[in-house]
Amino acid sequence: MIIFQNKIMDRSEVSIDIEDRGYQFGDGVYEVIRIYDGKLFEMEGHMKRLERSAGEIELSLPFPASEIIYSIKELIKHNNIKDGHVYMQITRGASSRNHPFPDNATPVLTAYTKEYEENPSATTEGIKALLADDIRWLRCDIKSLNLLGNVLGKQKAKDNGYDETIFHRGDTVTEGSSTNVFIVNNGQLVTHPATNLILNGITRKVVIDLAQNMSIPVREEEFTIDELLSADEVFITSTTIEVAPVTQINNTVLNDGKTGEVTRKLQEAFKNRISKVINKNEEIKTGD
Amino acid sequence: MIIFQNKIMDRSEVSIDIEDRGYQFGDGVYEVIRIYDGKLFEMEGHMKRLERSAGEIELSLPFPASEIIYSIKELIKHNNIKDGHVYMQITRGASSRNHPFPDNATPVLTAYTKEYEENPSATTEGIKALLADDIRWLRCDIKSLNLLGNVLGKQKAKDNGYDETIFHRGDTVTEGSSTNVFIVNNGQLVTHPATNLILNGITRKVVIDLAQNMSIPVREEEFTIDELLSADEVFITSTTIEVAPVTQINNTVLNDGKTGEVTRKLQEAFKNRISKVINKNEEIKTGD
Repeated sequence: MIIFQNKIMDRSEVSIDIEDRGYQFGDGVYEVIRIYDGKLFEMEGHMKRLERSAGEIELSLPFPASEIIYSIKELIKHNNIKDGHVYMQITRGASSRNHPFPDNATPVLTAYTKEYEENPSATTEGIKALLADDIRWLRCDIKSLNLLGNVLGKQKAKDNGYDETIFHRGDTVTEGSSTNVFIVNNGQLVTHPATNLILNGITRKVVIDLAQNMSIPVREEEFTIDELLSADEVFITSTTIEVAPVTQINNTVLNDGKTGEVTRKLQEAFKNRISKVINKNEEIKTGD
Repeated sequence: MIIFQNKIMDRSEVSIDIEDRGYQFGDGVYEVIRIYDGKLFEMEGHMKRLERSAGEIELSLPFPASEIIYSIKELIKHNNIKDGHVYMQITRGASSRNHPFPDNATPVLTAYTKEYEENPSATTEGIKALLADDIRWLRCDIKSLNLLGNVLGKQKAKDNGYDETIFHRGDTVTEGSSTNVFIVNNGQLVTHPATNLILNGITRKVVIDLAQNMSIPVREEEFTIDELLSADEVFITSTTIEVAPVTQINNTVLNDGKTGEVTRKLQEAFKNRISKVINKNEEIKTGD
């Protein structure tokens, strides 16, 4: 069962129009929210970002975020998902193909759950990353459906036996193809500032919040490829893989191929944050 | 009736999967071919470009170009289209969502015809264009479904009472949101070279070919915003609007708001090219 508009439906009954603008222009936005023990993690942050992404492309959500979440919670119960995620996307809807926004299209919401057989973060010890030119557009802050640059980046990593691609514009490291990148030097974190060149990851924000609570200094500043390769530790973050150490970049082995101390501390803190959500049955909010 | 894979089907019977990669990643390519008097114009050039675009993203066409064209010609007859276009797109197909190319997905072809009530080029005398930063990705040579930058550009023009947006990277003019841009100075044409920063338009190539036949010199070289605004003439080209004079850019009126002499000659030559296709019932090929 999946969500189509505001209804929970059998997936086989849902049909996307060939002229849905999501299908022809990538004209839409999306979110992935992690489910731990049946509960949505950082739900509010994801929904705020969904609203922001939609606003940046002048797309009206077909339903208020609260209604979408209501449907999603029903779907999680219905599909009995314990550990997994919910994927949701909203497109500008179907209309006779023409570049400008249509006057009369109804935005289309689709959402579905995915159950994990094992925790993806458990399989991401020792990420091997490949460097690649960041060829994407200049609004990477919008979580849009225009993901071909990310797809080609990830595929390039896979083709070469790597797990992830880390993008750089000129000499500046931006982010991974589906992750944010942090470096650790002398016990301090550095990560690219949340500009138009990166997606402001929810896990990125949680990690910054956790670090600050642990008195680990965080600088949101640009850093270079050289700084990346010579860092004490490097880790990447995302909703799916949480906090994962990068132990190799191209041919350079980092930190003797081991998870660094600061990375390990942040992984533990992240697990504690998850446990609080699971055990206390309450939403934990992260400040912006 | 439309084309879905290699079948002509009723549109209402066609359903796109919510996890089609075209819908979630814009992972696909497309073409629009003009139909004049029931005949496909520059069909070979469009199909070669489709194959190139697909190749650049390592997407295999689900059917050979010749079979696709066979189906399209059947569809044109079936729908009895005299003047209009055919839109076709190929996505990487449906697969459980994950960035890398799926191992087992079948690419999905959709194509349909659109009939024109009036020739769109007749309504494009005196295009007003707005300048905007080119924020798109660095593979604009691929005719992909990642078109949000183009959509936002076109919408910006519309919101401000203009017909088209002309993009620039820094000081260099690249192309329009759905057109190529030519300037005319002292009887010579200049247009951005066919690099990764523009789509190598089929109409662009026809116009270059026609100009060379008419001994009008053509330079495929970068030009600046200042050169654009001070040109003797400016025109844009596309499959839909053919050759259309730009008579205003931002607040600058060009050539006293009239179609320039060189532009007019090229429009006539273009009409003659179309007439040859219609009358001689033969394909006219344009050299690369």
